[in-house]
Amino acid sequence: MPRTRVHSLFVSLDGYAAGDHVTLEKPIGDAGALFSKFDGRVIHGIQGVDSPITMDHALFSMWGQGIGAEIMGRRKFGPQQDEWPDDGWNGWWGEEPPFRTPVFVLTHYPREPLEFANGTSFYFVDASPQEALRLAQDAADESDVRIGGGPSTVRDFLEADLIDFLHVSIVPVVLGAGVRLWDDLAGVEERFTVESISTSSGLTHQLWNRNR
Amino acid sequence: MPRTRVHSLFVSLDGYAAGDHVTLEKPIGDAGALFSKFDGRVIHGIQGVDSPITMDHALFSMWGQGIGAEIMGRRKFGPQQDEWPDDGWNGWWGEEPPFRTPVFVLTHYPREPLEFANGTSFYFVDASPQEALRLAQDAADESDVRIGGGPSTVRDFLEADLIDFLHVSIVPVVLGAGVRLWDDLAGVEERFTVESISTSSGLTHQLWNRNR
Repeated sequence: MPRTRVHSLFVSLDGYAAGDHVTLEKPIGDAGALFSKFDGRVIHGIQGVDSPITMDHALFSMWGQGIGAEIMGRRKFGPQQDEWPDDGWNGWWGEEPPFRTPVFVLTHYPREPLEFANGTSFYFVDASPQEALRLAQDAADESDVRIGGGPSTVRDFLEADLIDFLHVSIVPVVLGAGVRLWDDLAGVEERFTVESISTSSGLTHQLWNRNR
Repeated sequence: MPRTRVHSLFVSLDGYAAGDHVTLEKPIGDAGALFSKFDGRVIHGIQGVDSPITMDHALFSMWGQGIGAEIMGRRKFGPQQDEWPDDGWNGWWGEEPPFRTPVFVLTHYPREPLEFANGTSFYFVDASPQEALRLAQDAADESDVRIGGGPSTVRDFLEADLIDFLHVSIVPVVLGAGVRLWDDLAGVEERFTVESISTSSGLTHQLWNRNR
């Protein structure tokens, strides 16, 4: 059975998983400290980094394994709100979006798909979590679907009980503001078995596997 | 720079990394307890296992990432000794050897290569570690080379200071006999930086990265 997976979701000690004030200049808003341990070069394999290969790298490298489609919230695609302006925006990533699969962007303002030569295609859909997941599963063709964030999107899918696997990385920082991950999810851990380890970087990695 | 890597090398508390008495019927000899936590379904990605996806799975899944060739000792390929008998032996793995790359088998008895449809080719070479590594690096074409074991082969490459990365999994068993990994390697840790974690299965994983 294909799974629905979340990877490398960074959460501060006070429960924030993204920053406020996302702009074109600051794609991660005020939350730079959350991502300071992340090394995006490993998302398609540990060979992407120079030495050393760390435990953190090993765990981040799960991101792309066996993934056939992603679902993301609109703010992960761009900072615009309401109607899309006619600004030629095609995401934060230039001509090489790292996804290399179909990506479903949740928005109340559908628009034409965008296709890139490296296998990434963005589809803009006004859909519930269940509907979006069905579209993504069809596109993924028996591979797993990644819920790519941001935190509001992950929370919506957790509330709908659609997440099978979640890799959370707890970062030893206190943000004080931002987008909260765990709101309205009291007791969510009862649906999962959670394994934790801490690494020499100070991160605590948790693997949440949904109970069957 | 391409690396020379060792993955998922299981070692008992008393330092054994393979069993004695390897036969056609018992490819791992008397060391079954060493491999009881291993799940080979993840070597090409965590999507290979059903839930749960564990920390152990995540770490084992590094095995194939960015690897362009493997070097193995003769006993990993088969239990025969001395001259190869005319027995049609083509390895333990049937028609789907898991390697999917060129594999260089170290033997004092060279023989014709074996090629499989899934991208695996076995080359039988009478070579020093340095010579074998040069052949494998040429075949790997800028990707990393895996030293696939067994333990005597890993030890030879460690002695020659040819290993850049080593993933050791310490298994909480006492074997009392077998093939020892660490013989003649006193002080080898000084050449590496070692990161350790323990997982809920009881394994202790170590990532050894060679100091530059």
